[in-house]
Amino acid sequence: MSEQKPLILVTNDDGINAPGIRNLVVLMKQLGEVVVVAPSSPQSGMGHAITIASPLRLHEVDIFPGIPAYECSGTPADCVKLAKHYVLKDRNPDLVVSGINHGSNTSISVLYSGTMSAAIEAAIEGIPAIGFSLCDFAHEADFSHTYDHLLKIAGHVLEHGIPKGVTLNVNFPAKSDQPLREIRICRQADARWQEEFDERKDPYGRRYFWMSGKFVNDDTGEDTDEYALQQNCTSVVPCQLDLTDYAILADMKTWKINERTGTIPAVSAPVPARPPIENS
Amino acid sequence: MSEQKPLILVTNDDGINAPGIRNLVVLMKQLGEVVVVAPSSPQSGMGHAITIASPLRLHEVDIFPGIPAYECSGTPADCVKLAKHYVLKDRNPDLVVSGINHGSNTSISVLYSGTMSAAIEAAIEGIPAIGFSLCDFAHEADFSHTYDHLLKIAGHVLEHGIPKGVTLNVNFPAKSDQPLREIRICRQADARWQEEFDERKDPYGRRYFWMSGKFVNDDTGEDTDEYALQQNCTSVVPCQLDLTDYAILADMKTWKINERTGTIPAVSAPVPARPPIENS
Repeated sequence: MSEQKPLILVTNDDGINAPGIRNLVVLMKQLGEVVVVAPSSPQSGMGHAITIASPLRLHEVDIFPGIPAYECSGTPADCVKLAKHYVLKDRNPDLVVSGINHGSNTSISVLYSGTMSAAIEAAIEGIPAIGFSLCDFAHEADFSHTYDHLLKIAGHVLEHGIPKGVTLNVNFPAKSDQPLREIRICRQADARWQEEFDERKDPYGRRYFWMSGKFVNDDTGEDTDEYALQQNCTSVVPCQLDLTDYAILADMKTWKINERTGTIPAVSAPVPARPPIENS
Repeated sequence: MSEQKPLILVTNDDGINAPGIRNLVVLMKQLGEVVVVAPSSPQSGMGHAITIASPLRLHEVDIFPGIPAYECSGTPADCVKLAKHYVLKDRNPDLVVSGINHGSNTSISVLYSGTMSAAIEAAIEGIPAIGFSLCDFAHEADFSHTYDHLLKIAGHVLEHGIPKGVTLNVNFPAKSDQPLREIRICRQADARWQEEFDERKDPYGRRYFWMSGKFVNDDTGEDTDEYALQQNCTSVVPCQLDLTDYAILADMKTWKINERTGTIPAVSAPVPARPPIENS
């Protein structure tokens, strides 16, 4: 490493007091100069939410000895934006790491993941970024078996970089009695969450719902993140910012959509701007 | 159309009382049987957030004459999940439409967009889905010039379908004195938001921030959504659920990441699970 240590911004979505981010901070201290900007409260499932309708708060906190740390009232994506534009305004981080998340962020979960949205936000800004997640939801999860792989991945990225706009989605198997096998480069499995809603009544007799669900993986490929984790390997999926489906795009150009005529009646007048709200 | 009219679920992210969704409901009534499940309050910028740490509320509301409508306390993605699994549990919608959003959702904004996250959620469930946005943030925006294109696009999808897992991101130019030109199939422009933070003090002397920013498009391609809109055309971008960057993935398989050794010191002991919180 050169005379100036690399600057590493650490964030997460479980909140600044989660054990996962403490593990990540300790590891990143070995690789560079660390600054923490993380949500003041848990933000799991926040996807790529940002805060535009209310103001953001930012407080310096003294919870990581010798490391500047700030808690932010916003989402993980907000934390990265505030870190870059306010906390670190005169210096760009060399790496943004998010996590270690308490819980898996494989497959389609990347879309719901606050952990990954922080990393993706950094990639939008052109900063190398990695989201780390452990396939164990427990607050008291053991992260120690991930350290070697985590440092290898972060070290490689600091040394060699990653292409602009790419974010690495890293998932570690939960601790078991077997040592982790190797790090595998994977594609996102084609799986999904099958939701269930638990309907209840509150003490006033009003209906409410808890969302829950189970993960369903019908993707039998052996090159997926899910498969790697089943093999007790660490999965690394490179994620891109461009959602365009180019295969379909080429096909859609043959659609005769502008030539459609006729069967649809025209709307005669603009819809009134104000709805008749009736005590809803 | 067959004897049974197609079932169309309408949602949005500006909230069930926004003018944009009223316009969409009126249009969709011409194409099928409509059910509305939309957020009870504005959810702009919510990305693909879902509600897992608190319960969800759902109330039937009588604001669209003759149309079953429900307001939900959750995010746009929650609305689609609750609609599918609870409101419509015995019948799958033939189409999910989201919008019409007050404001553009082109380019990278697709990642922050609650409008698009509702449509993407439907695509995850295997339902054809379209997000519609108008490049005009105003509450009193005029949507009337979009009706013809909107009905053509939704009509085409109802008639011909779209491939499983694909979501259409449709943006309309703001109303001008020129009529809209054609519908164009586009790729997502490689642009981004450059944030700014407006720092203020509250009446108690404590610091807070408003996030704002400007849209920066350095993508000079003529096949992008941004370019189409500049030409007063409607843009349609097909979006996919798989974020894997396959080009990079092939390259990463040559990384010698598992063979990395040495320079990184090992972590000797697990990090304590509980942080020393000091009145933060």
